Amino acid sequence: DLSLLGAKATEYPSDYDPSVLETFVNKHQGRDYFVKFNCPEFTSLCPITGQPDFATVYISYVPDVRMVESKSLKLYLFSFRNHGDFHEDCMNVIMNDLIALMDPKYIEVWGKFTPRGGISIDPYCNYGRPDTRWEEVAWQRLSQHDLYPENVDNR
Amino acid sequence: DLSLLGAKATEYPSDYDPSVLETFVNKHQGRDYFVKFNCPEFTSLCPITGQPDFATVYISYVPDVRMVESKSLKLYLFSFRNHGDFHEDCMNVIMNDLIALMDPKYIEVWGKFTPRGGISIDPYCNYGRPDTRWEEVAWQRLSQHDLYPENVDNR
Amino acid sequence: DLSLLGAKATEYPSDYDPSVLETFVNKHQGRDYFVKFNCPEFTSLCPITGQPDFATVYISYVPDVRMVESKSLKLYLFSFRNHGDFHEDCMNVIMNDLIALMDPKYIEVWGKFTPRGGISIDPYCNYGRPDTRWEEVAWQRLSQHDLYPENVDNR
Amino acid sequence: DLSLLGAKATEYPSDYDPSVLETFVNKHQGRDYFVKFNCPEFTSLCPITGQPDFATVYISYVPDVRMVESKSLKLYLFSFRNHGDFHEDCMNVIMNDLIALMDPKYIEVWGKFTPRGGISIDPYCNYGRPDTRWEEVAWQRLSQHDLYPENVDNR
Amino acid sequence: DLSLLGAKATEYPSDYDPSVLETFVNKHQGRDYFVKFNCPEFTSLCPITGQPDFATVYISYVPDVRMVESKSLKLYLFSFRNHGDFHEDCMNVIMNDLIALMDPKYIEVWGKFTPRGGISIDPYCNYGRPDTRWEEVAWQRLSQHDLYPENVDNR
Amino acid sequence: DLSLLGAKATEYPSDYDPSVLETFVNKHQGRDYFVKFNCPEFTSLCPITGQPDFATVYISYVPDVRMVESKSLKLYLFSFRNHGDFHEDCMNVIMNDLIALMDPKYIEVWGKFTPRGGISIDPYCNYGRPDTRWEEVAWQRLSQHDLYPENVDNR
Amino acid sequence: DLSLLGAKATEYPSDYDPSVLETFVNKHQGRDYFVKFNCPEFTSLCPITGQPDFATVYISYVPDVRMVESKSLKLYLFSFRNHGDFHEDCMNVIMNDLIALMDPKYIEVWGKFTPRGGISIDPYCNYGRPDTRWEEVAWQRLSQHDLYPENVDNR
Amino acid sequence: DLSLLGAKATEYPSDYDPSVLETFVNKHQGRDYFVKFNCPEFTSLCPITGQPDFATVYISYVPDVRMVESKSLKLYLFSFRNHGDFHEDCMNVIMNDLIALMDPKYIEVWGKFTPRGGISIDPYCNYGRPDTRWEEVAWQRLSQHDLYPENVDNR
Amino acid sequence: DLSLLGAKATEYPSDYDPSVLETFVNKHQGRDYFVKFNCPEFTSLCPITGQPDFATVYISYVPDVRMVESKSLKLYLFSFRNHGDFHEDCMNVIMNDLIALMDPKYIEVWGKFTPRGGISIDPYCNYGRPDTRWEEVAWQRLSQHDLYPENVDNR
Amino acid sequence: DLSLLGAKATEYPSDYDPSVLETFVNKHQGRDYFVKFNCPEFTSLCPITGQPDFATVYISYVPDVRMVESKSLKLYLFSFRNHGDFHEDCMNVIMNDLIALMDPKYIEVWGKFTPRGGISIDPYCNYGRPDTRWEEVAWQRLSQHDLYPENVDNR
Ligand SMILES: [Ca+2]
Ligand SMILES: [Ca+2]
Ligand SMILES: [Ca+2]
Ligand SMILES: [Ca+2]
Ligand SMILES: [Ca+2]
Ligand SMILES: [Ca+2]
Ligand SMILES: [Ca+2]
Ligand SMILES: [Ca+2]
Ligand SMILES: [Ca+2]
Ligand SMILES: [Ca+2]
Ligand SMILES: [Ca+2]
Ligand SMILES: [Ca+2]
Ligand SMILES: [Ca+2]
Ligand SMILES: [Ca+2]
Ligand SMILES: [Ca+2]
Ligand SMILES: [Ca+2]
Repeated sequence: DLSLLGAKATEYPSDYDPSVLETFVNKHQGRDYFVKFNCPEFTSLCPITGQPDFATVYISYVPDVRMVESKSLKLYLFSFRNHGDFHEDCMNVIMNDLIALMDPKYIEVWGKFTPRGGISIDPYCNYGRPDTRWEEVAWQRLSQHDLYPENVDNR
Repeated sequence: DLSLLGAKATEYPSDYDPSVLETFVNKHQGRDYFVKFNCPEFTSLCPITGQPDFATVYISYVPDVRMVESKSLKLYLFSFRNHGDFHEDCMNVIMNDLIALMDPKYIEVWGKFTPRGGISIDPYCNYGRPDTRWEEVAWQRLSQHDLYPENVDNR
Repeated sequence: DLSLLGAKATEYPSDYDPSVLETFVNKHQGRDYFVKFNCPEFTSLCPITGQPDFATVYISYVPDVRMVESKSLKLYLFSFRNHGDFHEDCMNVIMNDLIALMDPKYIEVWGKFTPRGGISIDPYCNYGRPDTRWEEVAWQRLSQHDLYPENVDNR
Repeated sequence: DLSLLGAKATEYPSDYDPSVLETFVNKHQGRDYFVKFNCPEFTSLCPITGQPDFATVYISYVPDVRMVESKSLKLYLFSFRNHGDFHEDCMNVIMNDLIALMDPKYIEVWGKFTPRGGISIDPYCNYGRPDTRWEEVAWQRLSQHDLYPENVDNR
Repeated sequence: DLSLLGAKATEYPSDYDPSVLETFVNKHQGRDYFVKFNCPEFTSLCPITGQPDFATVYISYVPDVRMVESKSLKLYLFSFRNHGDFHEDCMNVIMNDLIALMDPKYIEVWGKFTPRGGISIDPYCNYGRPDTRWEEVAWQRLSQHDLYPENVDNR
Repeated sequence: DLSLLGAKATEYPSDYDPSVLETFVNKHQGRDYFVKFNCPEFTSLCPITGQPDFATVYISYVPDVRMVESKSLKLYLFSFRNHGDFHEDCMNVIMNDLIALMDPKYIEVWGKFTPRGGISIDPYCNYGRPDTRWEEVAWQRLSQHDLYPENVDNR
Repeated sequence: DLSLLGAKATEYPSDYDPSVLETFVNKHQGRDYFVKFNCPEFTSLCPITGQPDFATVYISYVPDVRMVESKSLKLYLFSFRNHGDFHEDCMNVIMNDLIALMDPKYIEVWGKFTPRGGISIDPYCNYGRPDTRWEEVAWQRLSQHDLYPENVDNR
Repeated sequence: DLSLLGAKATEYPSDYDPSVLETFVNKHQGRDYFVKFNCPEFTSLCPITGQPDFATVYISYVPDVRMVESKSLKLYLFSFRNHGDFHEDCMNVIMNDLIALMDPKYIEVWGKFTPRGGISIDPYCNYGRPDTRWEEVAWQRLSQHDLYPENVDNR
Repeated sequence: DLSLLGAKATEYPSDYDPSVLETFVNKHQGRDYFVKFNCPEFTSLCPITGQPDFATVYISYVPDVRMVESKSLKLYLFSFRNHGDFHEDCMNVIMNDLIALMDPKYIEVWGKFTPRGGISIDPYCNYGRPDTRWEEVAWQRLSQHDLYPENVDNR
Repeated sequence: DLSLLGAKATEYPSDYDPSVLETFVNKHQGRDYFVKFNCPEFTSLCPITGQPDFATVYISYVPDVRMVESKSLKLYLFSFRNHGDFHEDCMNVIMNDLIALMDPKYIEVWGKFTPRGGISIDPYCNYGRPDTRWEEVAWQRLSQHDLYPENVDNR
């Protein structure tokens, strides 16, 4: 699966492209555990003004059989670079694509954007596989989301 | 709906004006998720002394059909600039106006003001749509509110 | 009610004096919400040695009909300035006085003192109105109090 | 001189008004020393768009005979609230007004604004009384200004 | 009880000595509340190598009738200075001694040591009085202990 | 058991070697309590590229009869230095080895790696002994894992 | 000059384009003062691999007659978005373009990039107008540059 | 000289009282060195309103023959507790009293007060013994004072 | 020159190997400017005990004709991984190798190591090309080195 | 020289003992460079009250022929553990002993103690070898010492 890691000539996609995502097999399928990706280099375009937007994206998931390969995830996130979409849509689309790719037990995506006009926007979505205990976990985590908003002063 | 974003000549309202708020349609209505606005540039007037007050306001909500457009939210918050109201009332009014605008599943508003006479005031209110599971979430979040007050030393 | 806010000649009480506390009417009685006061300028005297003590006091409450006016709260807290009492007693007394004044649904008081002899003391007490759901909230909040003590290194 | 401090009915000017500034006499004229004002509640309007701007302003000076009274300084800074001017002009105007008011030996004014379009602007100006050693100090301080720009990430 | 506070000639014990601990009577026995001691000046000896160890110790408890006097607590903690014991044992012994002294409703002790060989050790123990609701609280607090380990980089 | 602590000539293993781990007997077996190891000096090799990886590893456990000796833990973690394995596998292997060594009641392992290609990966796994109440604790802690991802900006 | 500020339909250049820069006239030409731009949203492409690079750029200058308009500066920096160039070259080019545009008395540009392969690169260049005292200032500031490198741990 | 350190019954002066200051002899008179006192528990009264003021005071000096004893310094600073004086005057008076007491080679006093009306005031004064090289040092330190004002946001 | 950047099969040297270093030509030779490398992933071995050491290394230099390529620098620093040398020697050797490689105008190397036995060691060395003004800069920077040691508490 | 590093049975001295200090030969005598020791685990006794004192000690020096071995430095600093001496004397004695041991070109010692009675004391002394350029450096560093006292709030 790992065609990208260690490969020489990486092609960077010029627009949103979920097909660059690759997976590998989870070696610890007998255990539920979390993997988090910290992605402070996310950038997309405002679909109305064309102005670049910037965010740090946190992706956490519990794998089942397939796991997303991190270099392909990097390429996938880079593919938003010249793609226009709203903040909320970017986060939902990322989560939808990773669900389709990996069929994880649980996943959540949190984007923290820089401000425009003095206000910044932080969308958060999550998902637990239906008819498993992770469906209830998703609800619990959503209902408890961010009781302590971080201090933001735009500097 | 989006008359403001990308528009040239923005009119800034001269006093409290909820009519500037605009909405757009939630594209992910099949999923409950959170959107947070960080607003460190809130200012209003003390209704007794006329002295300006300053706060950082955090607004988090779970959309149903309508979502508040962020540039209109900016204008709305700016409309408090020359408006006199107590801290607690500002936060409750903001939440009431956003409920009337969007009919969200859940919303919370937390204002963190700068001190006067050595004491600062931080009102927090929330709301879950009655007769949905979000009503219970509102109660749970309120009952667990701010168990860890942030360090404040007035500097 | 608001005799102090905006008044010219404030009298600063020379010893502990709960009678300076004033209230005003809660305009949002249909909603349970929190108000927090951050008070980093609290000082009292050690009843044994007479040495000044210093603390940051955090007061959070859920109002019912009456709310404490913040300038009167300032005067009240200043009235401990030349009053001798132990750390734990100061915090309990403040809470008792505010309960007597406002009859709130819920209240908690947390004092964080500077060290003497290398050790600092942080008392925390709370209260939920008996025979309401806030009585159970008080117990839940007490039982979950401060699972993550803040880093203190005396510098 | 101190007509404002302790006065009951403060009038808040409705536009830029340097006439509200008041002074008192320096009691330590035999010694050169610094006084700094930290002013995190500065706000003005963009002269082109009418949008509110926000800054923290740091004012440091070495008094000669007259010193600015801090409550009048507060009113003066509040008078920019509904006044339209560019960031650089606000800082230069504040310094010019304080020079005219106090004739200080030395003064500097540094504004740190919140970002618009992802960029924030921090103007800094200073002044040393001509033909004194403070003229050279002003040059030295300007030439060494801000070798270590603070970390800014717009959050 | 308070023979130490304000006394002139304090004797510092030369080895581990729980007999220096003193108590006073809780004036608020009708209310369950927390008292926390922050103790960043704890030091003991490694029982194998004799090398000094250093920790910050956090002690939180809910008093019943007796409360530990803080100056005696200081002397008690200082008595570990030339005493050899492992990290885990120190924390358990401190808790055992304070239980024997005060018979508290609840108590917890958390030591955060400096590293040896690149690794630091943080033991945490707690206790709720058997056959009271605090026994269950102790279990709940233990089972939720430290879900967010603080950042440690040995600098 | 403690052959390493205080010994002169420590042999550093040249590749992954769980046999260096040593234990000692828990002196407080009548009490469930936590011990955490902070390990900011973990390094391994990428199995594909051979490039060194770096992480801070946090290990927390509740001992039963045997406890891992910290100097042997240091040697064990150092044995990954020239060993090639993926981030997720390293964390799962460490936990498996410590379970085999100590048969603890509960254990969790959290690795926080430095970024490659702008993304960093943080695996977290845990374990509660089957058919004890710690099995349920493991599930609760996993389902509540990391609701507040730390700020990561790659600097 | 200010064709961009407040204009409706901003065109975002698709590659490096210094022609978007605009200026306005300095109203305080009788005084030397500093203006700093904090730009945390800079991104370009690696000219070898095509991989996006990210930096925070700090630009400080002392204006003479012309000053750069901040919205045009934003567009100019955005024009690097799909442009391939090395870190050091980007910073030198930005400074060269701003010198050509404004003919400032003094200017400095400092880029702080995110790491690749565990190492991050921070180029710094500066310029003082030849045959003025700012030429010597440039040398002094360069020779004293960054005696206290900020803490960087790649997280 | 050391009548206070270790003494039992400390008398706390009820108003400003420099006579409580005591000295001891410098054992290292052959070497010029600095001693700094960090004093975060300073409080005085506003001479106009009677409102308490709070500051952290930093005192640094180079001793000659006499050094101030720290417990007497504590009592001296506490004597401002019920004393009314302006911020600038308190700092100058403290420095004058310590010069009279110790005749130091060099001394500086910096007070950092909490805000009133949104503005905080930080006076700084210093002194070098006339006709020594410390006189020039005082001038150099004054002329370079606080080129990097600390971030203050009133929280 | 750039054989490594973008190449597929990187060979990681198994011991200290300065021959992996590569250079490219400085495109801005007409201007003196700084380039800094932040390297938080440095590790070597203690030559006496064989125990791994860890440091963050900061390298700053002013290029003349040749500049070190960053991926080759990464490989070079990784070559210390299984190499035994004292802290001070590592830093001096790195600087010597980079001088031999690039013949820079100026260079400095600062290593900040993690503690052993409670003490951490931070060597700093620098170099200015003889008989240029950078020789004097090196002396000035050395003589002013680290007047403000960063806070270190081993956690 | 290195009898201690790697040795098995370290003897910890029971009182102040400079004879435990050991040296090794500087391998880079042709270059002046700095070595800093960060020592956050320093503790001594108050000579009047016997109460333990705690400090972080920073030692920076420029070696000539001999360098102090860090494990012997650790033992030396530990020898103050049961030794009574004032803060200022401890710092001067440490510097005197290291001068006698190494005859360095330059050395400075800065102790930062925890507070007693609300005040903390930070002595700083330095030394440059007479009749070398380091004598002048010592004076320059002393005269510029600590223009920016760190924030201390006793928590
Ligand atoms: Ca802030
Ligand atoms: Ca911020
Ligand atoms: Ca603060
Ligand atoms: Ca602290
Ligand atoms: Ca950041
Ligand atoms: Ca920030
Ligand atoms: Ca740290
Ligand atoms: Ca770090
Ligand atoms: Ca960092
Ligand atoms: Ca960071
Ligand atoms: Ca602050
Ligand atoms: Ca630290
Ligand atoms: Ca610390
Ligand atoms: Ca503080
Ligand atoms: Ca502190
Ligand atoms: Ca603090």
